[in-house]
Amino acid sequence: MDTAYKDLSLPQRVLLGPGPSNVPERVMKAMASPVVGHLDPAFLAVMEEVQEMLQSVFMTKNRFTIPISGTGSAGMEAALVNVIEEGDHVLVCVSGVFGERMCDIVGRCGGILKRVDTKWGTPIDPDDVTEALKEFPAKIVAIVHAETSTGVLQPLEEISKIVHEKDALFLVDAVTSLGGAPLKIDDWNVDVCYSGTQKCLSCPPGLAPITFSPLAVETLRNRSQKVQSWYLDMTMLEKYWGPDRVYHHTAPISMVYAIRESLRIVLEEGLTNRWERHSAYHRDLVSALEKLGLTMLVEESYRTPMLNSVVIPPDVDDVSVRKRLLEEYNTEIGSGLGPLKGKIWRIGLMGHSCTQENVEHIVNALKALL
Amino acid sequence: MDTAYKDLSLPQRVLLGPGPSNVPERVMKAMASPVVGHLDPAFLAVMEEVQEMLQSVFMTKNRFTIPISGTGSAGMEAALVNVIEEGDHVLVCVSGVFGERMCDIVGRCGGILKRVDTKWGTPIDPDDVTEALKEFPAKIVAIVHAETSTGVLQPLEEISKIVHEKDALFLVDAVTSLGGAPLKIDDWNVDVCYSGTQKCLSCPPGLAPITFSPLAVETLRNRSQKVQSWYLDMTMLEKYWGPDRVYHHTAPISMVYAIRESLRIVLEEGLTNRWERHSAYHRDLVSALEKLGLTMLVEESYRTPMLNSVVIPPDVDDVSVRKRLLEEYNTEIGSGLGPLKGKIWRIGLMGHSCTQENVEHIVNALKALL
Repeated sequence: MDTAYKDLSLPQRVLLGPGPSNVPERVMKAMASPVVGHLDPAFLAVMEEVQEMLQSVFMTKNRFTIPISGTGSAGMEAALVNVIEEGDHVLVCVSGVFGERMCDIVGRCGGILKRVDTKWGTPIDPDDVTEALKEFPAKIVAIVHAETSTGVLQPLEEISKIVHEKDALFLVDAVTSLGGAPLKIDDWNVDVCYSGTQKCLSCPPGLAPITFSPLAVETLRNRSQKVQSWYLDMTMLEKYWGPDRVYHHTAPISMVYAIRESLRIVLEEGLTNRWERHSAYHRDLVSALEKLGLTMLVEESYRTPMLNSVVIPPDVDDVSVRKRLLEEYNTEIGSGLGPLKGKIWRIGLMGHSCTQENVEHIVNALKALL
Repeated sequence: MDTAYKDLSLPQRVLLGPGPSNVPERVMKAMASPVVGHLDPAFLAVMEEVQEMLQSVFMTKNRFTIPISGTGSAGMEAALVNVIEEGDHVLVCVSGVFGERMCDIVGRCGGILKRVDTKWGTPIDPDDVTEALKEFPAKIVAIVHAETSTGVLQPLEEISKIVHEKDALFLVDAVTSLGGAPLKIDDWNVDVCYSGTQKCLSCPPGLAPITFSPLAVETLRNRSQKVQSWYLDMTMLEKYWGPDRVYHHTAPISMVYAIRESLRIVLEEGLTNRWERHSAYHRDLVSALEKLGLTMLVEESYRTPMLNSVVIPPDVDDVSVRKRLLEEYNTEIGSGLGPLKGKIWRIGLMGHSCTQENVEHIVNALKALL
């Protein structure tokens, strides 16, 4: 047997990409707490606290609020497979990679897809949603709140009204926005919302918080077919996360410890303070980058605070700058995806990574490298 | 905002249930290594090592050998959804909860199901498989190697021959057996096999190692429909875990660190030594329990070494014994599932939990409590 593998040794990076963000020491410590069984009373108490804290962070009273045992993309799949049945009409607003991914999953669920598209880097026009719904009997309208591939924040409240006038369910991807920008599930009438842990919650990747409104739960209860995924079937998951505690699958214990601590940190700071912090350092970053002569991809009023898409100047080599940032500055930023590959950098200021020190650090590094 | 949540504090249990098992300090330490990006060269190197070590532990040369980003049950779903298309014939050998679960998933995939059943606590009769395949054109035959709900180890090699004579794919659940009992993917001609991390690998729950043989990969490539799960789609996952490193979803970084260390520990011990250790302490446990007047559910020749199903004497209260074990001895053992609820205890001796000290500990505790 080969025993030639060395002790694990990883660099301490400054994580300023599209996620993961840097993880606070407190979260690391919590994650390394002793593993107990998934039905141990001590773990059940942790689960209850995680559910309560998730409700606070999602700003919802939804009882169906749990962390799914997979990363943010598992959250996307869980959201869609639970409410879509074969032949259901689903309208997806597409303004980047993650909207495209939703379309892919709708197809795999046997949904009838219609898209509202917008140019990457611009927001969805609510009038286009109104128009699309005139002729299309959507059961669900889905949208990505903060499109991580472009850095555009969508006008959720306005679109939610349009969706509910047509009695459709409003399904929102908040992988990147949760904990970094205002997101009010109950006030904004969002029916299904999921997120990830490794962005503005600053927990290692591995869980996907999700919440279902009473209307979404009713839709789930009225299904005529089983949910196509056993692992992500909320009708079964609720029996483990609800008062019955019926075994479904072994929860990822250590990750649940980690998210508990990261949610606790979010609530200690307070949501409003946290949103303001993301907004303030975003503005500082943009203004400093503009002083360097760089420009932003997205118009000011639609920018996501936690993900800054910066246009790469025409004479600059994308790959070599990112490589030097990593090697010389121990710093990660993100590349462009899809049609924006080579055209933008994505600089994340998420959760624990969103500090004045990091703004100065990345600005100084780029100044030196450009 | 509520900030009334306390510091996380969990008891250090002796984990002798059906998993999770106790996690070595080295694995905890590795898991808490600095989080880096999922495309960071430092992480890609970790991924490569994890793949190599998984190949060693599965005893396979299969290139398609990765950890799925979910728990063992996600592994089961990944195995089935990738090879089943609507209308495919699937034979499932059922001898407990996890065989039943496979049947449920086959239905959700649109497969045409046939079952070979056996009484819980007894192994599948290979002749029944031969008989079932006479009239049923199975594309896939699925079985659970070590049925965690009963403690029965199935005769894989013999069944594999029968399956391949009929040119079907052989799909094996090794959630509980991997790293604790002989399992030879290539020698035994297993086409798809998945496991979990929290049993004999003694890593926290959260990943599902999976491996696909060249024949299974060919089946995957020849699909006429997309895999119904986007998250578990191996045609996409292989592009991230293969040389292209195409982003699919953000890997659960910390869990991948953890499994790397746990695999390293397995290889340091050596598979054969590890199997022998599980076998030896299993025999010690059984012989000590029999001295206490307890009997085993399963006949000697079919017992799983890592999961011991003990018949609860008729005058003993299941729940109160387990409660006292937990409260007075800080020790977890498992209850019976389904028809065996209240009838058996499931005592796990898995991975790091499989020690002479733990055998003595649980025997002394039961002696005192009964």
